Amino acid sequence: MADVGHLVERARQGDARAVARLISLVEDASPSLREAMAALMPYGGKAAVVGVTGAPGVGKSTSTSALVTGYRARGARVGVLAVDPSSPFSGGALLGDRVRMQEHALDRNVYIRSMASRGHLGGLSWSTPQALRVLDAAGCDVVLVETVGVGQSEVEVAALADTTVVLLAPGMGDAIQAAKAGILEVGDIYVVNKADRDGADATVRELRHMLTLGERRAPGDWRPPIVKTVAARGEGMQDVLDALDAHRNWLDRTGGLNRRRTRRAAAEIEAIALAALRTRMGDLRSSRSSAGLDELSAAVVAGKTDPYAAADRLVEGLTSG
Amino acid sequence: MADVGHLVERARQGDARAVARLISLVEDASPSLREAMAALMPYGGKAAVVGVTGAPGVGKSTSTSALVTGYRARGARVGVLAVDPSSPFSGGALLGDRVRMQEHALDRNVYIRSMASRGHLGGLSWSTPQALRVLDAAGCDVVLVETVGVGQSEVEVAALADTTVVLLAPGMGDAIQAAKAGILEVGDIYVVNKADRDGADATVRELRHMLTLGERRAPGDWRPPIVKTVAARGEGMQDVLDALDAHRNWLDRTGGLNRRRTRRAAAEIEAIALAALRTRMGDLRSSRSSAGLDELSAAVVAGKTDPYAAADRLVEGLTSG
Repeated sequence: MADVGHLVERARQGDARAVARLISLVEDASPSLREAMAALMPYGGKAAVVGVTGAPGVGKSTSTSALVTGYRARGARVGVLAVDPSSPFSGGALLGDRVRMQEHALDRNVYIRSMASRGHLGGLSWSTPQALRVLDAAGCDVVLVETVGVGQSEVEVAALADTTVVLLAPGMGDAIQAAKAGILEVGDIYVVNKADRDGADATVRELRHMLTLGERRAPGDWRPPIVKTVAARGEGMQDVLDALDAHRNWLDRTGGLNRRRTRRAAAEIEAIALAALRTRMGDLRSSRSSAGLDELSAAVVAGKTDPYAAADRLVEGLTSG
Repeated sequence: MADVGHLVERARQGDARAVARLISLVEDASPSLREAMAALMPYGGKAAVVGVTGAPGVGKSTSTSALVTGYRARGARVGVLAVDPSSPFSGGALLGDRVRMQEHALDRNVYIRSMASRGHLGGLSWSTPQALRVLDAAGCDVVLVETVGVGQSEVEVAALADTTVVLLAPGMGDAIQAAKAGILEVGDIYVVNKADRDGADATVRELRHMLTLGERRAPGDWRPPIVKTVAARGEGMQDVLDALDAHRNWLDRTGGLNRRRTRRAAAEIEAIALAALRTRMGDLRSSRSSAGLDELSAAVVAGKTDPYAAADRLVEGLTSG
């Protein structure tokens, strides 16, 4: 293990390998992570964090790649963090999708990294903010967080961004599927990709209808725009970038940026605290005290106690430790 | 809210509406759940719990329905719990899939219930064991837990069953996809469904190869069989039932059943304890103490503290409360 302070220093100077190693520390839930995060603290808060989410097949990777192209044209340094909660593997697991990112592979001002959650204790809300902090300290002006999959946790991770882009593609019932997955509640910008296909306008209409349903916005609130794109040909990407700028301005103007970042930090702190508590519970498993998890579990299986009473005793043992 | 004791009594007598209401209490994380679980405790432990998992499109619902038919032919009372972590809706959300279950809809000895996780605090390992307890107390001889999706959490839920059935279908790379999703580690029985399609034998070979890789079994250990089925025509279902019986016998003979149920109870207790701790953290959010989550989050955003130090203080506030 290299000296963490040295790694952080190299990452700050834009050393891609140091950035990769620091993100691996997050992925592996390394014990030295704590030191790394403390060392990174003074260098954060500069990157704009953009979440990109949507169902499989809507063109997330293509759209992310097109956004990278757009930001690079402005001279920005860009990070891409692809989060895959369903894969126990890192890096290679997403290689198929990442092929579309190849055009940026040699660009020294683009960091691309996929991160598996490996089912570790704290989940995505534990790992994502920490990986973001690494990319932020490495001087990224923008970090795109692409979530693969449509589970609740992915939606939640996308919602931890400063700005969340929700992608859809034309197809019957897509907007309804999106509503079911809960993603119509988290979008700041909606993109109907593959807009050259039949049904794109219908999808836009359907989406607008669903977004208007039950809308309770006050004057000055952000109204999520709907943008049509053909990301594979770069069409409409300028409109997406404009919408991202507009949302950023709105965040700055209204104090929304600070609110969102505080929310992200709260999720991160809570996830770290829960992981720590869960580790303590695991330690209690083998403890000889009467509140050991093994003993409590056996009592529940035997019908001698109920799981709530057992949980009370577990928490008791934890908090009096 | 009806009297919980009365609900439990009616559920025990096989009243389907009482069963449904009790599972709704789980889904809604109702405050009266604690009382309900305590009241259910004396009536548990009888049902065999069978997890059914696999990627979308392998025929989970059709296979589950065919298993219900098989168990009903033996006169068993059967519960089906379909767990959908990606949907914020209950019941209706899975109606599409559940169409295949219609043939059992009028059978008074079959309870079919889909359950959304709604992203509530404890997640699937919180809600699934509690819903199982309801179906168990209602006199089900077998409960089939079908998980929709292939995320890590669904795999974990399937693995909490007494016996876990992993479904695959012929198709290039399916076994490899399954390996990636981590489901090759949790299966007690593997079923290659749609075995009338091209490539079924290749999938069986590939699967057998992957299961053998890195196998470290002691004599007397369970060797997961691979069964071919065409669930839509009921073909091979008797073989699956035989394999389920064989695994059950093995569990009984080796003490494995108790080990698995203790593991399930441990997951449940831990999930309830974590949810309780998380609620306490939420309460600390607005507390005036210096360890309030809002204040800690603001300090992290301002770079005044790191998230680990903030989490320490949060846990401190929690455990000294």
